[in-house]
Amino acid sequence: MKIYTKTGDKGQTSLYDGTRVYKDSLRVESYGTVDELNSSIGFAMKFVKDEEIKEKLKKIQMRLFFVAGELATVEEGKYVYKIKEEDIVALEKIIDDYLPKIKGVDKFIVPGSSEAAAALHVSRTICRRAERRILTLKREESVSDILLKFVNRLSDVLYTYARYLESDLTIMDFEKFYNEKL
Amino acid sequence: MKIYTKTGDKGQTSLYDGTRVYKDSLRVESYGTVDELNSSIGFAMKFVKDEEIKEKLKKIQMRLFFVAGELATVEEGKYVYKIKEEDIVALEKIIDDYLPKIKGVDKFIVPGSSEAAAALHVSRTICRRAERRILTLKREESVSDILLKFVNRLSDVLYTYARYLESDLTIMDFEKFYNEKL
Amino acid sequence: MKIYTKTGDKGQTSLYDGTRVYKDSLRVESYGTVDELNSSIGFAMKFVKDEEIKEKLKKIQMRLFFVAGELATVEEGKYVYKIKEEDIVALEKIIDDYLPKIKGVDKFIVPGSSEAAAALHVSRTICRRAERRILTLKREESVSDILLKFVNRLSDVLYTYARYLESDLTIMDFEKFYNEKL
Ligand code: B12
Ligand code: B12
Ligand code: B12
Ligand SMILES: C[C@H]1O[C@@H](n2cnc3c(N)ncnc32)[C@H](O)[C@@H]1O
Ligand SMILES: C[C@H]1O[C@@H](n2cnc3c(N)ncnc32)[C@H](O)[C@@H]1O
Ligand SMILES: C[C@H]1O[C@@H](n2cnc3c(N)ncnc32)[C@H](O)[C@@H]1O
Ligand SMILES: [Mg+2]
Ligand SMILES: [Mg+2]
Ligand SMILES: [Mg+2]
Repeated sequence: MKIYTKTGDKGQTSLYDGTRVYKDSLRVESYGTVDELNSSIGFAMKFVKDEEIKEKLKKIQMRLFFVAGELATVEEGKYVYKIKEEDIVALEKIIDDYLPKIKGVDKFIVPGSSEAAAALHVSRTICRRAERRILTLKREESVSDILLKFVNRLSDVLYTYARYLESDLTIMDFEKFYNEKL
Repeated sequence: MKIYTKTGDKGQTSLYDGTRVYKDSLRVESYGTVDELNSSIGFAMKFVKDEEIKEKLKKIQMRLFFVAGELATVEEGKYVYKIKEEDIVALEKIIDDYLPKIKGVDKFIVPGSSEAAAALHVSRTICRRAERRILTLKREESVSDILLKFVNRLSDVLYTYARYLESDLTIMDFEKFYNEKL
Repeated sequence: MKIYTKTGDKGQTSLYDGTRVYKDSLRVESYGTVDELNSSIGFAMKFVKDEEIKEKLKKIQMRLFFVAGELATVEEGKYVYKIKEEDIVALEKIIDDYLPKIKGVDKFIVPGSSEAAAALHVSRTICRRAERRILTLKREESVSDILLKFVNRLSDVLYTYARYLESDLTIMDFEKFYNEKL
């Protein structure tokens, strides 16, 4: 078994349905960024100790494989593991469960109080980059509304987990810090 | 209080002054990348032990909120926490203070000698990506010269801190390594 | 010696051969992303304990300086440290040596079992982003086929090392996980 098939050396590659596309097409850029997000969550998890959150994050990673596969398919009906409305409900449940446990959610926080939170904030921003890339694709080609919504909600989940795992938090105060010298 | 307001599920969002824009617009791409930079610095700080540098990096993070807020506003006069020339002077002072303490600043260094340095090099390159994104925006819409200069200088600060925190440094030698086999 | 030369404050910069370009040009975007990749490998190495792999990764980082320098030059004949076919052969040898030691290479794996693997998966995805950026450049301006091939193969090397350093691996099972609730 070879993993380098050499077919991609000139810049083209295959989608799941066999369609040949350029690697810098909007579609590949989209699922490539989802792959980056998935890897970044895998890394962030190394700093998370809470078992419940770790388990959820792993399930979210698996969902990201469904997302990437869906983005990697153009042929209607060919791909079956589509993101569903109930996946979004599940993400919203996480937010609703954890947000009440967090203080100061009406202010920006300076990312980076604990290791786990810091790493999750990085994932949060990559998730938002993925959302932007998928949106660019969606304006050119068809992408499911639910998939986009899922990625949007996911960045709020990552924010929620980050905030929950924060310790020794610094809340952003525009007024106060603006007058302090750098 | 809800953090998911569902208003962004279709790809549009609001700037600080209420203007509706697409999430993949140059403006959102710019402050989204600044958010990524901010998070990445928050993460890198977890590996920094030097208290003086940690304190400065936190202040820099706060400045990045000013940067992002400024980028998130189009309406003239609406946003007050603008980056000032004195912020740049402060960054240049950091560089001038630390550079004399560093050896071999006339050569490229292979990123990654200490954990702290390695993480700061990652932030440095994200900072330069943010600079590129802001520049792309600036060629289409108005962005303050000082803000762009701030981000440019910031990547040199991140380089300086990384170099200062380096240990067991590998200096790049094009001639020598080119002849060594991979 | 100054590292901030102020010549780049307005958005232009110099290539190796002195050509002035915008910092958000495809060329600068390409080598800027290679710089990000290089830094990310430097960071990932901090989690790798295997001495042989660490040594190879450092040599790969040095090769990335050759890649970036080549991308930073337009003038024909000016730049000498070009990526060679034998560099690709060296990467393929790494893959061929390590792949037999790995189980389950006919399935996707959920990134993030060990710290080292997780960090290398992040580098892998940044490498693929660099490949996409270089390809975009190559469609506008001349870029060596070998350089592009090198970056393509490098992502497979990063995958291979990540897989080798994995522990307690989760193999992706679309069928099974699709029916498990998030
Ligand atoms: C889209 C895609 C991706 C996407 C998204 C996948 C997703 N759904 O999340 C991303 C960008 C993440 C990706 C990454 C990689 N991919 Co890919 N990917 C594909 C593609 C186009 C479709 C796969 C898919 O989503 N199938 C959807 C599922 C539902 O369909 P399935 O039939 O059940 O898919 C199974 C097989 O594809 C299978 N599989 C069979 N052999 C192999 C071998 C390897 C190494 C892998 C990873 C999977 C794999 O795994 C799937 C699950 O059972 C295929 C090519 C193709 N046209 O099928 C390549 C393909 C599977 N990928 C390949 C490779 C090499 C990789 C990477 C190792 C590349 C790299 N260096 O980073 C990584 C591995 C990442 C990981 N975590 O394991 C190779 C495998 C070559 C081989 N036979 O050994 C393929 C065949 C492309 C090719 N011709 O080169 N990939
Ligand atoms: C630009 C912007 C961002 C930018 C940059 C902000 C900056 N200056 O650095 C970035 C991309 C970083 C960002 C990130 C987030 N943002 Co925001 N952001 C905005 C926006 C458009 C302007 C905010 C701003 O810069 N104000 C400038 C200051 C000077 O003005 P201000 O009136 O004093 O601003 C205060 C309020 O906005 C306030 N605030 C009030 N309620 C809440 C609630 C939350 C959760 C937050 C974070 C802030 C916040 O905090 C500011 C400081 O006092 C507002 C919407 C709007 N039109 O106002 C959303 C907004 C504040 N953001 C929001 C959210 C949810 C987030 C994120 C949690 C999203 C995510 N999942 O990643 C993160 C949090 C990041 C963090 N570190 O805490 C929501 C808050 C919803 C709510 N009421 O609970 C808003 C209202 C947008 C919306 N309608 O959904 N954001
Ligand atoms: C392309 C380039 C990059 C690329 C890629 C380089 C590569 N090959 O991988 C990237 C994006 C990685 C880069 C990063 C940086 N660069 Co640069 N880079 C260049 C550029 C345009 C060409 C360098 C090159 O590749 N030469 C190819 C080799 C074969 O030719 P060479 O003559 O042997 O090159 C030697 C000199 O350039 C030399 N050198 C001489 N003085 C200095 C000083 C510094 C601080 C450095 C890093 C190198 C350096 O190092 C090379 C190896 O011997 C030069 C400007 C120019 N036109 O030459 C700037 C230049 C060398 N870079 C500079 C700077 C400041 C940096 C950064 C510190 C910026 C930052 N804040 O991130 C980092 C350092 C990264 C690191 N790991 O050390 C400055 C140095 C200023 C000074 N005299 O002190 C220069 C001169 C540009 C400028 N005018 O501002 N760079
Ligand atoms: C919190 C603020 O972040 C901005 N916003 C919303 N979605 C994204 C995204 N994918 N990337 C970057 N910024 C985003 C909007 O301006 C919102 O109001
Ligand atoms: C050190 C070298 O890095 C390049 N350079 C300058 N600014 C950026 C940026 N924002 N991103 C990537 N590369 C940059 C220029 O070529 C400079 O000479
Ligand atoms: C494994 C799958 O990853 C996709 N692929 C190939 N090269 C890249 C890249 N540089 N970036 C993102 N995705 C890529 C192709 O679809 C391939 O089949
Ligand atoms: Mg959102
Ligand atoms: Mg600069
Ligand atoms: Mg490839």
